[in-house]
This record gives sequence, structure tokens and C-alpha cells, in this order.
Amino acid sequence: MSAESPSTMRALPAAGRRTKPGSQTALRARNQQRIQDALLAAGPQTQAELSRATGLSSATVSNIVRHMSDSGLVKTEPTTSSGRRALSVRLNDTGAVAAGIDIGRRHVRVVLATLGYRIIGEDSISLPAGHSADEGMDAAAELFDSVLAAADVGRDRVLGAGVGIPGPIDRRSGTVVRGAILPEWVGINMREDLAVRLRVPVHIDNDANLGALAQVTWGPHGGCENLIFVKVATGIGAGLVINGSLFYGHVGITGEIGHATISDQGLICRCGNRGCLETVASTATMIDLLSRAAAEPVTTTDIIRQAAAGDPATLRVVDDAGMAVGRAVAGIANALNPEVIVVGGSLTELGDAFLNPIERGLLRHAVPLIGETTTVTMSSLGDRAEALGAAALVLAMADAVL
Amino acid sequence: MSAESPSTMRALPAAGRRTKPGSQTALRARNQQRIQDALLAAGPQTQAELSRATGLSSATVSNIVRHMSDSGLVKTEPTTSSGRRALSVRLNDTGAVAAGIDIGRRHVRVVLATLGYRIIGEDSISLPAGHSADEGMDAAAELFDSVLAAADVGRDRVLGAGVGIPGPIDRRSGTVVRGAILPEWVGINMREDLAVRLRVPVHIDNDANLGALAQVTWGPHGGCENLIFVKVATGIGAGLVINGSLFYGHVGITGEIGHATISDQGLICRCGNRGCLETVASTATMIDLLSRAAAEPVTTTDIIRQAAAGDPATLRVVDDAGMAVGRAVAGIANALNPEVIVVGGSLTELGDAFLNPIERGLLRHAVPLIGETTTVTMSSLGDRAEALGAAALVLAMADAVL
Repeated sequence: MSAESPSTMRALPAAGRRTKPGSQTALRARNQQRIQDALLAAGPQTQAELSRATGLSSATVSNIVRHMSDSGLVKTEPTTSSGRRALSVRLNDTGAVAAGIDIGRRHVRVVLATLGYRIIGEDSISLPAGHSADEGMDAAAELFDSVLAAADVGRDRVLGAGVGIPGPIDRRSGTVVRGAILPEWVGINMREDLAVRLRVPVHIDNDANLGALAQVTWGPHGGCENLIFVKVATGIGAGLVINGSLFYGHVGITGEIGHATISDQGLICRCGNRGCLETVASTATMIDLLSRAAAEPVTTTDIIRQAAAGDPATLRVVDDAGMAVGRAVAGIANALNPEVIVVGGSLTELGDAFLNPIERGLLRHAVPLIGETTTVTMSSLGDRAEALGAAALVLAMADAVL
Repeated sequence: MSAESPSTMRALPAAGRRTKPGSQTALRARNQQRIQDALLAAGPQTQAELSRATGLSSATVSNIVRHMSDSGLVKTEPTTSSGRRALSVRLNDTGAVAAGIDIGRRHVRVVLATLGYRIIGEDSISLPAGHSADEGMDAAAELFDSVLAAADVGRDRVLGAGVGIPGPIDRRSGTVVRGAILPEWVGINMREDLAVRLRVPVHIDNDANLGALAQVTWGPHGGCENLIFVKVATGIGAGLVINGSLFYGHVGITGEIGHATISDQGLICRCGNRGCLETVASTATMIDLLSRAAAEPVTTTDIIRQAAAGDPATLRVVDDAGMAVGRAVAGIANALNPEVIVVGGSLTELGDAFLNPIERGLLRHAVPLIGETTTVTMSSLGDRAEALGAAALVLAMADAVL
């Protein structure tokens, strides 16, 4: 389902209407989350150990574990601890699910996956341009509810939700930082705000990071140790899988190839520098260039259609953008020498018309042996990559303890 | 001791004269290396386990272990294995030493370090320009012998030698690849050729990688998880410490910022591309620029002296080079978001005259939050960084099993 398709457009819910932080239900949900978190962090445990780990009374732990067991989220089995009979609790790999949520500039997508990496629910809706962070988060919460209902999955079976957003996140504070495609969102602590709305544990990440994780989790590059996912859309960013894991660097802002300087005296970029890759190769720039010569503004869909029809101006713009992306990709390949570079974003349907100039740019600007040994390919996950990666973020945590 | 000082120049030894691969001594040395390698790989073991791990007879293992114990390389202690008396063998952290060897374009440096990270021997000699790989490796072997003799350390106490060379190494084959500062060395398998000459296990690495390892091992950045060491000399390269370890990527060629494109229509680089950082900011380029206006060719030493004296042309060349280095460093910082960037190589004595434009270039071209949160500093290890890092390569392996 296309994220831009009007048929999936829905009304936005009223801001914050599902936030009842003081209720009994909310209290139980928070306590259940503490138990889930403890099981995710340290694997199977007895109820007594869960009580110590969470600070909850043994009666509360016992109640919640019974509830979680009834809903299939955990399995329990008798054991002995210090010579006494006890109940060991572990996450249930058939009952528990992970949610992946992708919040874009114009869309929200939600997927639900079992711990066996099976997708059991999925939907997407469009968002109006320039929506506020509150509107975006409320829309995500409403879609999450409807996907849960359609899949007949109770919220208490959800281990957590990975959420991707198109902007850099300062991992020290969990806030969106300047340079995001959504300037209205800068400074907002999405982790906290979304946890209140979704009422499940939330793990925020940058969309390009999640695209990279999706490639090694759901895509054809499973087992690839060093992979770079380059997302070309309204903005341009990269996610880095290094030694098999997502790499976050010092404060969490990695793979910012959209701000590689391509042209010293180029246009001013929203980051404050000039001549950045985004000023010459983002879809926003392509749309701007092509709209000047068109009767009315073109869209990304028009670019894909016109390129397929062989329109010379469109092909030239796509080719120039691809060469610039390839040049920036060469810079990051020279630094990191990855096995594979996967190109994703809203232009993957262009196929070779976009991939070929990227490869030419890479070969032109990379150290020869690096250019020769790096595979460049289009993402086969389409516009699902980020949401699938968001679910994979939670699944990877579950994998570590199951 | 300066690597360029004529007072340390020595005659080169005759090529290959210490190679007697068929002798009894060589056989014993190879067998001892197999036992050392087994101890390095899997930690303390019984003699029976060493016999299984190496394929050597128990009599041979017993003989060699006695010899290694006498020379202080290992310690033995009685233990039981499967109910029988046995002898457990472990590396001796006071007797064993690691060697670090830095082979440059014009010098060789050797250091010896105990497993307690104490330097017990060090020397360097100059090499003639354009020396062959055989001459360089023979000189390294002769200096290694003389440093061992001066420190009164028998070769059988040497766990291994790390060796740094100024060029990229294809880790799949252990050969030097195109793009090396030493074109005569391209295609040579230094790991094998040096092991024959040095008669200890050899671990080859790129000099910039070793400079990075030195910073987190011997420098003031111990414990730093993400550090980039940028070496500016005749060539320019970077070594990457990622998540606390050196990062090698797919085939071993990482941190190639010397070949970041700075000027689209710039000079042709030895890598085959044009306008690479090396064509605008290496010491070779600075020397070329300044020599055109001078009565006779200038040297790196002249640049440092003239900059200190405030010569305007020299300061301009240094400033322009620093800005270009800063721009390339911004590219890699945007990708990797490191805590610290350390600048090393032959220009560290320039101090702020070189560091300031690098910082300006970084701030100009990096995403603002990355520029603001990245520390840039000059290496305090001088021209010893690479040799110290080479020793650290062996020490890190020993640390893992002691």
C-alpha cells in the first residue's frame, strides 16, 4: 500500500485524547512494562527475582504474570530456587509481538511482527504536509490501535514499539535535533511523548538507521557485517550496520551523508552549511528543478513516471542527482569499506536510471579497490523498510534474551 | 630520536641473509610460535591440550615448554586434568615482550614493550628515499636484532611483532595494495616476508590504524570508544577506533580520507582520481607549493621553522591545507560521530597554526551538533605513535587471554 495513496487517508484523532496517566489501567500497564523490561533485559526469571528486579510486591508480580500468561505474552513453568518451589517466567515467542512504526513527513506506517519474524498486521495512512508533532504522534497511536484490533492482538502482548522518524536523534536526551526533515519536531522528546500515547515501551530511532537494520533483518542481506543504507527522499541520510550492529557513535548522529559538501559555492542547506548533498540530490531539489520548466509543480510520482517515459530533462536531473549521491557514498565507502550499500527512499522505482549514476559516482570518487569490492543495490523492501526495521529493533532485543 | 636525523643512519644489511628456513633452529622457532599462537588464541592450557591444538607430539611440546619456561616466556603450574596430574602452561606477563615496528618512507622505528605496557627498548634509523621493500624489511630486521640485544631480550621471549606500513593492506591476502606511499611495495606479502626475516609471529597493519590504536592505548584517550586518528604526512590517512576496537571493514581498507574529493577539477592523484585531499593538503603538496617560490627545495622541517617564524606564504599554505583537512575530517565525522579526532603525522609541531584551520574546516562542513561535540586535538605521541600502536596490536591479543 502506498503511503501517498489518498484512499488510505484518515481523519487525525484529537490530540492526546487517549492519555489517562493516573488510572488503574495505566498503573497496571506501567507495572506490566516493568516486568517485560526485566524479562527483556535479563531473560527467564523466577517471580521472586522479578519482584526484586522491579521493586513490585510479590502479590503484584504474581497477578500480572498470571494476566500475561493468560494473554500468551509469557510462559511459566515450575522450578526450584534455593531449594524451594518457584515459578520461572519467560517471554513467549509465539504470543509476544513487536510493533514497528514509521512516522514520515507525509505518512505513518505500522507493522506487527511475532518474535518468529512473521508479519501479522500492517497498515499505513497519509499525513497532511506540515503536520505538528502532536498530530503525527496521535495519528501513529490511532493507527497502532487499529492495526492491533485488525490483527486481534491485545496491547498486553506487545513487547514494545520501535519508532522511526526522519531526523537525527540526540541519544543523550532522546530528543529530535536540528536538521530534521520535520522542523516542527525539533527539541521534542518523542520517546516519552509516544510512550504515553502508545502505552507500550517505545524505542525511537532515525529512519535511515531502521532502513539499514531492515536490510540485514528482513532483506536479502542477512548476515552482512558491514552495510550502509542510504535513504534518498525529501532529505538524504544513511544508516550504518558495523560489525553486525547498528552504529550510533558518540551522541547518536551517524551517517549524515546528506550534509557532505558537494559544491563549495552551492545553495544554503537547512543545516546551515552550503552545497550539501541534500541541496543537489534530494527529491525536494529534483522537484524544484523540474517544476521550473513545467506548467504545474511536479511530484515524486511524476519524476518516476517521466523517467520511465524517457523524458530528457527528468533523466538528466536524475542522473546528476545520482552522480552526486555516488560521490557522497564514495566518501563514506572510503571511510568504512562496507560489503554492501543499499539505496532506499522514494526513488527506488527509478531502478537503473538512478542506480547507474550512483555506481558511476562511487567508482569515480572511491579508492579503486573499494569501488571494485563494494556492491551497490536498490532496496527491495520499498516503503516498508523503515517500519520493518523499527519492529526489528524490538525483535533484536527479544532475541538477545530468549 | 628523530627518524630523519642523519646521525642515526646506518648501513642497510644484505638482503635476506638471515633466512635459513630449513635449519633445526628454524624448525624449533616455528614450533614455539605454534605453541605461543595457541596460548594467545585460547589462554592457559595443559601440555596435552597444547599438543592437540598444535599437532605437535607431547615430547616436542614438553621440550619447548621447558625451554620457554626457562627463558621466562611462560609460567607452568601443576594441575589435574581428567583426574590425572598435568602441567598447566600460561603466558608470563613479566617475561614476554611485544615488538612494535614502524616502517616509513624514510625511517624504521622499533619498540619493545612488556605485557605490562612498559617500554624496555626503542631505536630508529633513517632509510634512503626510494628504498626497495627488501631493503626496508632487511633494515627493520637488523634494527629489531639490535634493539633486542640492547634490551638483553632473547628472541624467544618475543610474543610477536606488530608492523606498520604507510599504505593500505588487503587483509584477505596480507598484501600492500595500490595507493601506498611506497609504490615499490605494492603486491608484496609483507606478513610472510617479514616473518621469515624477524623469526617471530608478524601482524601487519596500516600506519594510521596503528596511530589510532596508540592513542587509546598509550595516549591520553584511553577508554575512548570512538576515535579517529588522522595522519598528515607525505600521504594522508585515518585509522578508526569504533566501539573500542580498530575497524577494518570488508577487505581492510578503511579511513581513506586522503582520497576524499576536495576539488572536482583538481590535480590528478596517485590513486587515479582527481582533486583528492592528498593533492591539496599532504606535506608533499605543501613542499611543492613552497619550493616554487624558494631558492632551493624546502623540507617539512623548513615548513615547521618558517611557520614558527611567521612567514606569510608558509602560514597561508598551512592554513589552506588545514581547512582542506578539516573539510575531509567533517565528512568522516558526519558519518561516524566520534568523541575525539587526533591529528598526527609530521606536522604536529606546527601546533595551533595547523590545528586551528582544521577545526575551522570541521565546524564549517560538519552537521552543527557533530561539530560542536567533537574534540579535535594534536597527537602527543609524536613520531612514536605508529611503533607504539604496532606493539599495542600484539599486547591487545595477549590481554585477551592473560
